[in-house]
Amino acid sequence: MLRRGALGQAATPSAPSRQLGASATALGARAPNERLARVVGGTLHEISLTPLQDLHGIVTPSDLHYERHHAGVPRIDPHAYKLLVHGMVDRPTVFDLSALRRFPAVSRFHFLECSGNGESAYRNMRRDQSPQLVDGLTSTSEWTGVSLATLLREVGVNPRATWFLAEGGDAGLMARSIPVAKAWDDAMIAYSQNGEALRPEQGYPARLLLPGWEGNTNVKWIRRLEFADRPFMTRDETSKYTDPLPNGTARMFSFVMDAKSIITFPAYPATLPDRGWWDVTGLAWSGRGRITRVEVSTDGGTTWSSAVLEQPVLSKCHTRFCFPWKWNGREAVLMSRATDETGYVQPTLAQLRAARGAGTRYHFNNIRAWHIAGDGSVTFGVGG
Amino acid sequence: MLRRGALGQAATPSAPSRQLGASATALGARAPNERLARVVGGTLHEISLTPLQDLHGIVTPSDLHYERHHAGVPRIDPHAYKLLVHGMVDRPTVFDLSALRRFPAVSRFHFLECSGNGESAYRNMRRDQSPQLVDGLTSTSEWTGVSLATLLREVGVNPRATWFLAEGGDAGLMARSIPVAKAWDDAMIAYSQNGEALRPEQGYPARLLLPGWEGNTNVKWIRRLEFADRPFMTRDETSKYTDPLPNGTARMFSFVMDAKSIITFPAYPATLPDRGWWDVTGLAWSGRGRITRVEVSTDGGTTWSSAVLEQPVLSKCHTRFCFPWKWNGREAVLMSRATDETGYVQPTLAQLRAARGAGTRYHFNNIRAWHIAGDGSVTFGVGG
Repeated sequence: MLRRGALGQAATPSAPSRQLGASATALGARAPNERLARVVGGTLHEISLTPLQDLHGIVTPSDLHYERHHAGVPRIDPHAYKLLVHGMVDRPTVFDLSALRRFPAVSRFHFLECSGNGESAYRNMRRDQSPQLVDGLTSTSEWTGVSLATLLREVGVNPRATWFLAEGGDAGLMARSIPVAKAWDDAMIAYSQNGEALRPEQGYPARLLLPGWEGNTNVKWIRRLEFADRPFMTRDETSKYTDPLPNGTARMFSFVMDAKSIITFPAYPATLPDRGWWDVTGLAWSGRGRITRVEVSTDGGTTWSSAVLEQPVLSKCHTRFCFPWKWNGREAVLMSRATDETGYVQPTLAQLRAARGAGTRYHFNNIRAWHIAGDGSVTFGVGG
Repeated sequence: MLRRGALGQAATPSAPSRQLGASATALGARAPNERLARVVGGTLHEISLTPLQDLHGIVTPSDLHYERHHAGVPRIDPHAYKLLVHGMVDRPTVFDLSALRRFPAVSRFHFLECSGNGESAYRNMRRDQSPQLVDGLTSTSEWTGVSLATLLREVGVNPRATWFLAEGGDAGLMARSIPVAKAWDDAMIAYSQNGEALRPEQGYPARLLLPGWEGNTNVKWIRRLEFADRPFMTRDETSKYTDPLPNGTARMFSFVMDAKSIITFPAYPATLPDRGWWDVTGLAWSGRGRITRVEVSTDGGTTWSSAVLEQPVLSKCHTRFCFPWKWNGREAVLMSRATDETGYVQPTLAQLRAARGAGTRYHFNNIRAWHIAGDGSVTFGVGG
């Protein structure tokens, strides 16, 4: 007699087909063996990192999207939520969530990346780092919201307005100055991520989305947009998110995330159990548009070959690349190098250090490397 | 003094920005207000339906992907999992999961749809049905796996083999005969969904994926592929998944899901609170390739206008459409009509009934309609 199983409680049967399985459920859950988790870090637990080495394709499950916040995740009542749009506009307006959702919606796949992502590939060269620890502050989602251009037309932005302030509703009142040109281009106020409402740590109920621009400018829990003819010089763009340069000056408003890539397999802590064919794979992305080429080197950067780019290749979105590689059992150094549609090529560490100096704190997009030892163990290493 | 909040426990603060928020977490959770759920149905709870009216864009969160199983969800140990490929092949082979994952991986966005999806739009015309109840047996994911063509080359399929049996490891031993041509085309053995491992109810640890073909042929918990020069005439393709026709014969092997669409807003149980501009939106898809056009009618099918198709428009994948509509406050009937790249146009109910008769049990892709009453209430209705 067949007996209905209790998924998640009963031991795994040795002959699953001899036993009636579990019933349908209102919400699915992962298989008990599959333990995926973000790594939580920061002195106040203000970051969590996406487990890039455990994921396939380009979409990040929403519960694994990286986090970065400056005063914790606020809990906001969506019925009380308001977005004030004011300053150099003809019709200052307060939008509630239902008003935002009533406008024509746009949906787009885009990556987000913290501008400090990858610092350990620039400064801390610990070899026991996984892709999650090296570059886990980037994720991709399908975002849905109202185009900021739609709201600009609604409020009648003054043509002399060149910047706007984006202010969040967290306890840090995270605020950045954004050129109005980006608002007309492809910015949106997003209220959905991968089909469902934004997760709280992604700005529920609404956030600014600036495709391709550094994560912190995509202000979460967005509550105010103020239009002006100058930047606001907020704390978050002066004391932070400014890149010190070797000559004592600094890059400010370094918005765009330059082209970058990382191999996610093979990578620490994986081990290749034997020689022969392996599928080298990873992610590439650019804040300037589409990835047009990813090259892979298996000899530490001496020679390069083009990888296969998985479809779809979308603008300002993670692109999955694959490269079949026959390992001969000897030491090897794997590297990947991304090129985007503007012709920009991901730099070596030496090139980036020459341009930015040792003290820079953001935009670490230099080439990453993985060392394969003769026993197949893989460790993080210096690239170029 | 700022106090660190406890997300999910504390009451929602009236001034969230005055209170330190929650810390980062290893796994995210939905906001407490956002209660998404599949509707579970069937006498043995063998189905669950995706809440189409609650979702945006095209990706379905994995825990909301529809379910359909014939003997419950088996619990399979991924370390014990085996796929046998045999029959008319040169090298009969058993693949374990690590062997499947070692082959070059492919990732693609595709819809799945139960071939019985939408029966209530053909036969049961209850007006109090949501998109979830009408058509919730369809979902879209990014699937990753090994191309079946790769496995066919690996085992050396005999050129005279024209069909293969796909058998699942559930207690029903779900089995379908599939033309080998589909294997060479775009079939895969998928082990990942939206980046992570397949969910148990989607075939963990591996399933057959036949892009664009009826859901049941995408055999879950796949354990055996047997190559032959004839179909196997299994119980699952004779007693079920065969479409009775009015002349007493039946359509067998009706694999491809024809082009279809449904408006997901406005739709029951939504109500339009006032007249003016509304964003009519929904999903369209075709098992034959890309959607090339979606037309919307607001007068019950008398006149039609082209909707906007959201990018990306992918082959054999949900496509999101939008249509701005100014409601004048009077009764209206909203309908959508999809056309795919082969020129196939979604039929009216009358056209489909004329071709298939009253008794058919699968492939209900006729045009759907939503009635808007003068008070703004929306109910399901007959289309065309």
